[in-house]
Amino acid sequence: MRDFSRDLSALALNTATLGHNVEGAGAGWTPERVIDACAARGYGGVVFWRREIGTRAAAIGNHARAAGLRVAGLCRTPYLVGRDAPQDLDEARASIDMAAELAAPVLTLVTGGTEPGSKGTAETVARLADRIAELAPHAADAGVALALEPLNPMFGGNRTCLFTVADALAVCDRVGAPNLGIAVDVYHVWWDRLLAQSLAAAQGRVLGYHLCDWLENTSDMLLDRGMMGDGIADLRAIRGMVEGAGYVGLCEVEIFSARNWWRRDPDEVLDVIVDRFRRCC
Amino acid sequence: MRDFSRDLSALALNTATLGHNVEGAGAGWTPERVIDACAARGYGGVVFWRREIGTRAAAIGNHARAAGLRVAGLCRTPYLVGRDAPQDLDEARASIDMAAELAAPVLTLVTGGTEPGSKGTAETVARLADRIAELAPHAADAGVALALEPLNPMFGGNRTCLFTVADALAVCDRVGAPNLGIAVDVYHVWWDRLLAQSLAAAQGRVLGYHLCDWLENTSDMLLDRGMMGDGIADLRAIRGMVEGAGYVGLCEVEIFSARNWWRRDPDEVLDVIVDRFRRCC
Repeated sequence: MRDFSRDLSALALNTATLGHNVEGAGAGWTPERVIDACAARGYGGVVFWRREIGTRAAAIGNHARAAGLRVAGLCRTPYLVGRDAPQDLDEARASIDMAAELAAPVLTLVTGGTEPGSKGTAETVARLADRIAELAPHAADAGVALALEPLNPMFGGNRTCLFTVADALAVCDRVGAPNLGIAVDVYHVWWDRLLAQSLAAAQGRVLGYHLCDWLENTSDMLLDRGMMGDGIADLRAIRGMVEGAGYVGLCEVEIFSARNWWRRDPDEVLDVIVDRFRRCC
Repeated sequence: MRDFSRDLSALALNTATLGHNVEGAGAGWTPERVIDACAARGYGGVVFWRREIGTRAAAIGNHARAAGLRVAGLCRTPYLVGRDAPQDLDEARASIDMAAELAAPVLTLVTGGTEPGSKGTAETVARLADRIAELAPHAADAGVALALEPLNPMFGGNRTCLFTVADALAVCDRVGAPNLGIAVDVYHVWWDRLLAQSLAAAQGRVLGYHLCDWLENTSDMLLDRGMMGDGIADLRAIRGMVEGAGYVGLCEVEIFSARNWWRRDPDEVLDVIVDRFRRCC
């Protein structure tokens, strides 16, 4: 493991951590202000959400690079399956195009929930694989890799049909596209006893590593993520597994926290992240 | 699979489904009233919670058997690990004694959360195995089997350290007590792609099968379970796996539902269960 006691070049901010610039104390922070605040602290990169970008993808990407930050990724495609997925792939293609315009090498893909009328996940996963296979060439042409993100099983039904790293890798195998890999998020995978084994089989296919913590008393399914060190996830062990799978990308801090971190001054949040990244990750 | 189109002898009510006789419309229903209402409909059995039994275990058990019901189990031991676990095993032994007095052959065991000061689950699982090994002989002497219940990963931290059937079986292997097995609850395991594989390795060790459904839009972690047929779990497939593992016990309907089923007349709930059990399970 590299020594990050002073060097923060592996640290990235996912802008969801500041409430997407619309929630709580981060409301009104422009992408440029976020970029400058990260750059001033020595962060290595930043990851945006589509809603923050609008039509200014190229300008925002260029601002980040001029400030010395990598634009590590973009969140995310629309759902590809389930009740809330668009009928066609137009919006998914547009999200790829936005990543390309931002010059973000990775676009995160959250699958969406169970196909209407079906039970279990087999039928949904089959449809997901078909849709990704249809989408992947467009992403390849745009120079964008797709990172399939498995979610905690509590998000089954309406948000995901992939619950473990092994689930996501199985879809990668099924699709077989060279620009398809996975994103590993501590919040979603910390509990998985098979994580080491699954990641050992993921060589070269980890395209993103998302940091936060699982609070011992998690009270809300969606917006109660913890800051690194405040929870029970074994962050050092998981990072070791991810790097063991060949991942050399950024560690992206993504904390949805309506009751705590979103209420704090973004400057304070960015400082705490730096401290926790050095001490706990 | 047996034909249950008319025969309900495999159907059991877990009294949590009626709000434990204290929540909502079921408030004030005594265990005897619940027993009689189940017996009148042809249910095969009933499963109680300790809080409903008090000091009347023998009388309640005898009332159930006189009405033609099996007392299939008792919920549950106190936590054995984690911050909320009692320091000693006195209460756990008392819960075993209550199951014996009720003449319930199975006592469900929910583990409790992560041990204070630890990260991940390995340390907690090791302590859990030690405590179960200490407890199992007392249960064997009392004629009671212990059913380890894995919970949905969203309950990691403060309620469980076992998240899959495979996790629970690994602890069974580690302890090696002949009266230790697992409980399989649809709500907790429906999402697991490895469930068939795990249950194939569980021969003879499934001691309980809990029925409900996972709602597509689950809104509350604890009290938003669905009635069979209203969600997306593949109930027929899961039952097939459970029976394939040699399980010949009752199908126990356990629905924590503060916003819906607990608000309804218990007589209506019991009727709906019969209908759904016949059509969906």
